[in-house]
Amino acid sequence: MRSSSKLRCVAALALLALLPAAHADDKDVIDYRQHIMNTLNEQAAALGQILSASVPDDNVIAHLDAIALTASTALKAFMSKVPGGEAKPDVWANWADFSKRMNDFARMTAEMAKTAHEHGKDAGLANVVDALSCKSCHDTYRKEKPKQ
Amino acid sequence: MRSSSKLRCVAALALLALLPAAHADDKDVIDYRQHIMNTLNEQAAALGQILSASVPDDNVIAHLDAIALTASTALKAFMSKVPGGEAKPDVWANWADFSKRMNDFARMTAEMAKTAHEHGKDAGLANVVDALSCKSCHDTYRKEKPKQ
Repeated sequence: MRSSSKLRCVAALALLALLPAAHADDKDVIDYRQHIMNTLNEQAAALGQILSASVPDDNVIAHLDAIALTASTALKAFMSKVPGGEAKPDVWANWADFSKRMNDFARMTAEMAKTAHEHGKDAGLANVVDALSCKSCHDTYRKEKPKQ
Repeated sequence: MRSSSKLRCVAALALLALLPAAHADDKDVIDYRQHIMNTLNEQAAALGQILSASVPDDNVIAHLDAIALTASTALKAFMSKVPGGEAKPDVWANWADFSKRMNDFARMTAEMAKTAHEHGKDAGLANVVDALSCKSCHDTYRKEKPKQ
């Protein structure tokens, strides 16, 4: 690791200690929640490849864990009312519905991961269709991706 | 959830049961490992935003867990010798070095997550520079992203 990188990271850590309640600009808020949602997309896509038997299923439980873990952070990433990116303003206009769906998503993916740990991956995957209700929520709350 | 989606998923699950040792085509192998590495990129970027204090640090431990979990799956995603995507052929030509680096990455990120759980997020982050040695490995083993 080059010392300049190390210095930058040490400086960032020092900044973190100084600013426990960081003020997030709008772009930061949007970028951050996109990192969360992109993580979910990537992990769901990996799981989809396994479900369609196009790759081996060794990592199923790790994918279920990663999805559950990331789902548990997702609602928090939308707490700041900052429309933009792919989030429709309806996210905040219908916050009670949106947050209920996100909490259901976190709860059901956590149950799916727990089942996989306790009873094996096939048992965990048995509820994948209900737990990963991505499409229904995206149809309501996500805009078309802006053209690059 | 529409019944057609449900049917597709049930069919996929049935296929999974029938084909426990799926044969992955080259494109599938490359897509899969990219989902893993993209997950790491997204989670590291989210953590970077927290380190630079541009967003609040509520989710630090979840990010460290997600990185450790995904790191634990990464080497397996490169086991099939399929050059392509952003992976240089050196990954397989220098497999002993590559796999050592990936195993170190998995071990160090797991330790970082464990420290955060036991001693708090700041303690976990103290080793972030050494644990996230992404750049040094990418400089050696990753090609420039192909132009879209």
